[in-house]
Amino acid sequence: MEKANYSNWQASFVRLRSNKIFELVVVAIIIFSALVVGAKTYEETTRFSRIMDYLDWGVTVFFVIEIAIRMLAERRFLNFFKSGWNVFDFVIVVASLIPVDGGQSVLLARLLRVFRVLRLVSIVPELRMLMNAFLKALPRMGYVALFMFIIFYIYGAIGSFIFHDINPFYWENITVAMLTLFRVATFESWTSIMYETMEVYPWSWLFYVSFIFLSAFIFLNMMIGVVLEVMQKESAAHSLETGEGEAADIHWLREHVEDLQTQISVIHAHVLATSKATNKVDETIDP
Amino acid sequence: MEKANYSNWQASFVRLRSNKIFELVVVAIIIFSALVVGAKTYEETTRFSRIMDYLDWGVTVFFVIEIAIRMLAERRFLNFFKSGWNVFDFVIVVASLIPVDGGQSVLLARLLRVFRVLRLVSIVPELRMLMNAFLKALPRMGYVALFMFIIFYIYGAIGSFIFHDINPFYWENITVAMLTLFRVATFESWTSIMYETMEVYPWSWLFYVSFIFLSAFIFLNMMIGVVLEVMQKESAAHSLETGEGEAADIHWLREHVEDLQTQISVIHAHVLATSKATNKVDETIDP
Amino acid sequence: MEKANYSNWQASFVRLRSNKIFELVVVAIIIFSALVVGAKTYEETTRFSRIMDYLDWGVTVFFVIEIAIRMLAERRFLNFFKSGWNVFDFVIVVASLIPVDGGQSVLLARLLRVFRVLRLVSIVPELRMLMNAFLKALPRMGYVALFMFIIFYIYGAIGSFIFHDINPFYWENITVAMLTLFRVATFESWTSIMYETMEVYPWSWLFYVSFIFLSAFIFLNMMIGVVLEVMQKESAAHSLETGEGEAADIHWLREHVEDLQTQISVIHAHVLATSKATNKVDETIDP
Amino acid sequence: MEKANYSNWQASFVRLRSNKIFELVVVAIIIFSALVVGAKTYEETTRFSRIMDYLDWGVTVFFVIEIAIRMLAERRFLNFFKSGWNVFDFVIVVASLIPVDGGQSVLLARLLRVFRVLRLVSIVPELRMLMNAFLKALPRMGYVALFMFIIFYIYGAIGSFIFHDINPFYWENITVAMLTLFRVATFESWTSIMYETMEVYPWSWLFYVSFIFLSAFIFLNMMIGVVLEVMQKESAAHSLETGEGEAADIHWLREHVEDLQTQISVIHAHVLATSKATNKVDETIDP
Repeated sequence: MEKANYSNWQASFVRLRSNKIFELVVVAIIIFSALVVGAKTYEETTRFSRIMDYLDWGVTVFFVIEIAIRMLAERRFLNFFKSGWNVFDFVIVVASLIPVDGGQSVLLARLLRVFRVLRLVSIVPELRMLMNAFLKALPRMGYVALFMFIIFYIYGAIGSFIFHDINPFYWENITVAMLTLFRVATFESWTSIMYETMEVYPWSWLFYVSFIFLSAFIFLNMMIGVVLEVMQKESAAHSLETGEGEAADIHWLREHVEDLQTQISVIHAHVLATSKATNKVDETIDP
Repeated sequence: MEKANYSNWQASFVRLRSNKIFELVVVAIIIFSALVVGAKTYEETTRFSRIMDYLDWGVTVFFVIEIAIRMLAERRFLNFFKSGWNVFDFVIVVASLIPVDGGQSVLLARLLRVFRVLRLVSIVPELRMLMNAFLKALPRMGYVALFMFIIFYIYGAIGSFIFHDINPFYWENITVAMLTLFRVATFESWTSIMYETMEVYPWSWLFYVSFIFLSAFIFLNMMIGVVLEVMQKESAAHSLETGEGEAADIHWLREHVEDLQTQISVIHAHVLATSKATNKVDETIDP
Repeated sequence: MEKANYSNWQASFVRLRSNKIFELVVVAIIIFSALVVGAKTYEETTRFSRIMDYLDWGVTVFFVIEIAIRMLAERRFLNFFKSGWNVFDFVIVVASLIPVDGGQSVLLARLLRVFRVLRLVSIVPELRMLMNAFLKALPRMGYVALFMFIIFYIYGAIGSFIFHDINPFYWENITVAMLTLFRVATFESWTSIMYETMEVYPWSWLFYVSFIFLSAFIFLNMMIGVVLEVMQKESAAHSLETGEGEAADIHWLREHVEDLQTQISVIHAHVLATSKATNKVDETIDP
Repeated sequence: MEKANYSNWQASFVRLRSNKIFELVVVAIIIFSALVVGAKTYEETTRFSRIMDYLDWGVTVFFVIEIAIRMLAERRFLNFFKSGWNVFDFVIVVASLIPVDGGQSVLLARLLRVFRVLRLVSIVPELRMLMNAFLKALPRMGYVALFMFIIFYIYGAIGSFIFHDINPFYWENITVAMLTLFRVATFESWTSIMYETMEVYPWSWLFYVSFIFLSAFIFLNMMIGVVLEVMQKESAAHSLETGEGEAADIHWLREHVEDLQTQISVIHAHVLATSKATNKVDETIDP
């Protein structure tokens, strides 16, 4: 009896979860929550801080209920956590439940609430697709980042060894030097840094120019490479899935030419056999 | 009688519309109109303001007549609005008809006249093609922009929460903070903003460096992705249309291998049948 | 007699022109000429200005002789001008023959001599290929540039209408405004220009942000598009030429499947005919 | 006896070299060595300079032993130098053995030790692949760089001829002018340089704008071209190697359609022959 009851409940949760209006309400609440977070950054809203707190509290409660509904709609509780996006939503909602008791933690609670905007990514399919493409590019990106880090590390160490005494603000130690180099890589007033060191080491422009070339080249080179690779794989996979496009056509061709080959082999074998037989027939009929 | 007369008129409008010289005149008037608009920004031209007004008025009248001709050349009046480019031209021409009576509206009328330059895009085929490619990329671009907006929103909220008291000019509220972040994303004096907050929060460089990486990566990644996708689709469509190029060749192959298959199947079936028959013949003749 | 003599001369010119050592000498002289031009920009070299002039004179004479040899090596004099690169070389060499008589023309002569470095492009095959790819992309690039010019023109006109009185240095008229916008497009201290106008029109950041987005998007979008298109065509053409690579394979497939089709059609027709004949044979033999 | 002993030793070296733990230890030591180099840039570490020297010494010894093991693991000593990566490692390790006796050479020794971080590239396979792709792009990149150098040279010579007296700091001679142009190409405060020369030559903005367009266009155009070419070749090669993907499918098709063709030709020839024979049979049976 209890079980059937629960099963009824669950069915209605499943229905609710896949309801279009429910989805739109969730999207609306997420955007509203983002607006509340944004509004809090305005000074004037401190007058309405109590109202803001109530709104915030309401959003939090709504999100907890929504997550609960989606959890209960699963056949088995743990299935919910099998989808990465569900875990993502769960962590964001739970993080915003951390009690606020004033002082530092108010800031922390506020920051955690900011991330609720990210739920928009998990709920809009197009954004999920973009995010997936982004995540697929990450592993190779990681190695590119490591490669660039090595370049930065070497130039940073050289810079802080040689230019240390010229301007400690920029070259005090390897961390500061790497931050300076990041600044140079973004072309931000890099010439003033260069002219400063060129007064002591006239050839130091080689350091900067080579660094800019290396970092720009590696960054662009690998960036474009990563994007192209992910794109090609995705478009090929999509083409094979839908059965349209070049990749699908070529795959189709390969399969069907294989079929043709077996048929033609049979015909070919038969023809060779027949040509003997025909010769015999010829000989018999036309001796 | 009246109808035949109108039909004659219409025929001559159609002829006029597709006349090469008429087209060149329209292009010339558009460029002339742009020059008039440009000339008005020079102080010296205020002396000739009356002449300018006459020229402007002449251009407006010409455009009204030209649009009227193109409308009358249509079989049915409403067909004119079926083409997006016609609507575009119509809106631009009508907008510049808004009467000017001094004060604020003079500026408005002038601004509306500026957009007449855009008619060049609707009249030069190559620019139309570029614009079409651009418009095709827009929907996906919209999602990329939404994605970037979420990143900006989160960083903006965090920035205005944490750095609010350091420099309200940059971090007063979320709107100002997002504008500051846009500035950081364009690498415009971003280090001065960073060094300022690093005095209070020495680790705040992480905020900036991570933001720059994320925004540059997402922007480039998705940009290249969007362009490539649109390009591939366009070149495949173009190839299929003209019957030349890889996509067309592969499509051709698929269709013709399909034909081959049906023919070979027939041959194959026949061969299997014949091989029995031949055996019979063999048996009959050669018992 | 004279003619045979000339023909002998010509043969030796052809031999000289295709001589590897002669080519290397030309490359060396071009680089030397570039170094002389570069050296003249140093103040110390004014002491050696007479030597410099002699060297310059020597290089000019050498180039004239070299061009003459290449001209005489042609069967018919005018064939020389059929190659774009020859015309290019000829113009550069002739331009540097313009007599120098002091004053302004010294500067002009010097400038014309600078372009002799460009002869390196016409003599090194790899640079010629790069230049060709670059030239192929030019026509479409032209339209992209026209498109961007329209965007700049519209924003320039709007800017100089609205911001004229705020800072005439940046917005005096449409030309100055377009230069300012070019500066904004390169992200060069654009925020200081923006903050200035935001004091009068708080919403003017929309003008800048939308302009930056549009110009960056159109530039990147079309740039990548142009490069990709040229690349694809070149690689396909190269593949068809060498008979290797995807494009060549697909082309080969198309041609050969066409052959197959005619052969199989014959077989197919025969099979249909035979099947009737066989039936007849069957009937005759096995009634 | 001696030989067998050595052979045993060698076998254990080979085992050690391919040991996963040994590899991880080497990676750990490389990272540790990088951290020691980084730590030395901090002032506080001068107190522990003796400890630092010991650590440095330890790392050096370890690297020498590691290289020795990898050398001894080779069947023939010189085989070790056949791999470019081994030579790379060897040079880095030997360079850090240069004795340090104070003064200038301390700095040199330190700098040489910085490059030990690069050993990470030779030991992590993914980084090696990235580095290989990078190296493959180098030759064509070299020509692009030469092309850009020519552009810089021409603009540099023109700039230093014309603007020399306006601001010698930027335009003193061709070297300084090229550095200034590199600065302009990175959009670094280029407008201040432009406004300065525009006071004397109002049209000099053409010089800067055309230079920025040319350098940006050539850089992007060729960059993207180089990356795409390397990418396409790599992905085609990878596809052919693994037998999966478009390139492999097309190659497979070509090969098998060739087979089909020979078979079908046989059938076709037979059919033509048979059709005569059948006619004969028809005639004989059915006269």
